[in-house]
Amino acid sequence: MALPKKPVTGMKDILPGEMEIRDYVQKAVREIYGKFGFTEIETPVVEHIENLTSNQGGENEKLIFRILKRGEKLNLETARNSSDLTDSGLRYDLTLPLSRYYAAHMNELPSPFKALQMGNVFRADRPQKGRFRQFMQCDIDILGDDSNLSEIELISATTTLLTHIGFEKFTVKISDRRILKAMAAYSGFPEEEYDKIFIILDKMDKIGIEGVREELLKAGYDKTNVEKYLKLFGSEKTGTDAIGELKETMKDHLPEGTAESLMSIVDCVNAVKTGNFSISFDPTLVRGMAYYTGTIFEITIDEFGSSIAGGGRYDGMVERFTGNKVPACGFSIGFERIITMLLDRGFKVPGKEKKAAFLIEKKITGERLNGIMKEAAEKRKEGYTVLCAKMMKNKKFQKDNLEAAGYTEIVEFFDK
Amino acid sequence: MALPKKPVTGMKDILPGEMEIRDYVQKAVREIYGKFGFTEIETPVVEHIENLTSNQGGENEKLIFRILKRGEKLNLETARNSSDLTDSGLRYDLTLPLSRYYAAHMNELPSPFKALQMGNVFRADRPQKGRFRQFMQCDIDILGDDSNLSEIELISATTTLLTHIGFEKFTVKISDRRILKAMAAYSGFPEEEYDKIFIILDKMDKIGIEGVREELLKAGYDKTNVEKYLKLFGSEKTGTDAIGELKETMKDHLPEGTAESLMSIVDCVNAVKTGNFSISFDPTLVRGMAYYTGTIFEITIDEFGSSIAGGGRYDGMVERFTGNKVPACGFSIGFERIITMLLDRGFKVPGKEKKAAFLIEKKITGERLNGIMKEAAEKRKEGYTVLCAKMMKNKKFQKDNLEAAGYTEIVEFFDK
Repeated sequence: MALPKKPVTGMKDILPGEMEIRDYVQKAVREIYGKFGFTEIETPVVEHIENLTSNQGGENEKLIFRILKRGEKLNLETARNSSDLTDSGLRYDLTLPLSRYYAAHMNELPSPFKALQMGNVFRADRPQKGRFRQFMQCDIDILGDDSNLSEIELISATTTLLTHIGFEKFTVKISDRRILKAMAAYSGFPEEEYDKIFIILDKMDKIGIEGVREELLKAGYDKTNVEKYLKLFGSEKTGTDAIGELKETMKDHLPEGTAESLMSIVDCVNAVKTGNFSISFDPTLVRGMAYYTGTIFEITIDEFGSSIAGGGRYDGMVERFTGNKVPACGFSIGFERIITMLLDRGFKVPGKEKKAAFLIEKKITGERLNGIMKEAAEKRKEGYTVLCAKMMKNKKFQKDNLEAAGYTEIVEFFDK
Repeated sequence: MALPKKPVTGMKDILPGEMEIRDYVQKAVREIYGKFGFTEIETPVVEHIENLTSNQGGENEKLIFRILKRGEKLNLETARNSSDLTDSGLRYDLTLPLSRYYAAHMNELPSPFKALQMGNVFRADRPQKGRFRQFMQCDIDILGDDSNLSEIELISATTTLLTHIGFEKFTVKISDRRILKAMAAYSGFPEEEYDKIFIILDKMDKIGIEGVREELLKAGYDKTNVEKYLKLFGSEKTGTDAIGELKETMKDHLPEGTAESLMSIVDCVNAVKTGNFSISFDPTLVRGMAYYTGTIFEITIDEFGSSIAGGGRYDGMVERFTGNKVPACGFSIGFERIITMLLDRGFKVPGKEKKAAFLIEKKITGERLNGIMKEAAEKRKEGYTVLCAKMMKNKKFQKDNLEAAGYTEIVEFFDK
């Protein structure tokens, strides 16, 4: 019986053409984020099961690939459920492992610590087009800084990167979890209902304000509260003016400084930006993850309306490991989505070097072969890529392949 | 209860200092191997359990991290052993997934196909110093070429890389599984005993020829055979002469062309080499993996005597997936060992760019802040790395940290 040759369900092999683009983007990430002083780090893909199931991953906790215990620790007879069988699992994001990492190594790291991570994460999602069970995430985070300089740097770095790899006409949407909560509080909703309300609010993009009204009423919320709530989203004002207006309306419901800090971020990003994008306050922005405590933001490509980056402030997560509060803020680009978009638009990696292929008849040996290989070594020193390969029987196919891969010089060596 | 902050047993977090060296080596790998025409590809870290347990991984198959089935597929009541609970696992090397990959995508790949892979592999080994359960492997392989051009290119590329990252005085040991077998056959050992004999032979480094004699006799092998066998290792000749002598002695036991091909590899690598290393035939070389079918090779650093790269020809592996024989040959560098050696010798990544840190008082906002951030953006355009951070209360600690990280210009911004 032949062994299975397809990758496991929902995961993919990466072919050379795509890999070239991935390498290009990863290189750009290191270069641009590096310029902003982010330092690359790495955590294992395997994480403690306690950490993965500590109620910080939302829906992702249902999608964990669990790893079977080994040796004596695995006891099938006494195991009653899958938890008894596993002690670890594959990470579903990079934020939780980073918090664990920071907690463990705090004393060896600068403060504030600006981290860059690129790594695979795993979610046992239902397989569907363009969504994979292993995918690369690319995150920047700033830990130990409670000022909004973090947000400004994260947004500037991410927009600079996207501009650098050729994206334009995109929008940074920004809000604050505290504004979101203040709006619900001001409208008279009970606190324990906030999450359910935000899930409905999150659909505003798709179902519009009428749809949101309908769903809120159907869920049994008080009509007066619903109307008061929806009125908050009806402002004619935009940008920092809209933030100011909300602050005026909601008064004491909003923690002091929240609106000012948000305005300052929008203002500064606008002042510094050079790329073709805009930043705007969006009170309907929710961002699903339960761990966000302050600012939240997202980038959408105007043309597609889909999000390609998201992040926010999560001041409480490191505390779960250390007992002490550590301010933290991060921004994650949708690496896989970016690759798909580049592939779709036929993106070619710029600046390819000179490439030569030496096709060598198998019969050639001894001094003659040594001479050819020396010539190849010389050309490589001059900066060429030189591929040496046995001349195949189907030489036309071989040459077509090499030309497709960018080999402009093809030299054939025959036995005399 | 605080969550565990150490990584899972046997795995490690990578701190910024080490990460910088890893990135440097990975970049060198892409550059040097790229010059030889190797194309980077990637396979998922999760692999079918059937493939991982198909008797091609030797001892590594006992060290697999298995992944629990999910949903309906997991049936605890009917499960009798761990195999019933798992459908996949983490890969223990990159060679097996590459063979699956090649089998699946053969028609989309050039022939011969020169692959470069860098990726994590996993082995649930007993934790010990310097050995981790997740570690990076870095492999080059040539598939679809049955000529010894593969071996020449693999060895040239690997020695060029090692020289490039600063290694010298190392030795490439080379032999052929067919020579190994011919020596055993010529000495009169029965074929089914070969593997046991090779395990003893493999200890030659440590226990010497007397030790090997003793162990062979103790294992019950015929004294005449043992003496005939050991005499083969007693040649005064070296290099290609030693290969020639063995060929003369063993005559028909050796498949035609084996000795000539090996001599040609040694000869050509010697003719082309520029680095400070040597290549020599070593009849005691065994290389553990069962899948090797021809040439085998290994690189040891003279100073330490430990192997830092190994590889060989494995013409039978792709066949397990396709039913058709595909010639294949690969070389894997010990990425983690190389990193450890570079760390141990206090290696500094060369050519760091200009680095400036802006420390900004938290009180600064509005136009002033915008101006500072614009200045940072300007400096980044000029090629600087600019880290902007909130000025911390313990400014001395912050500045010491930044200086240690190579920030030579530290600019402080105070609220006026």
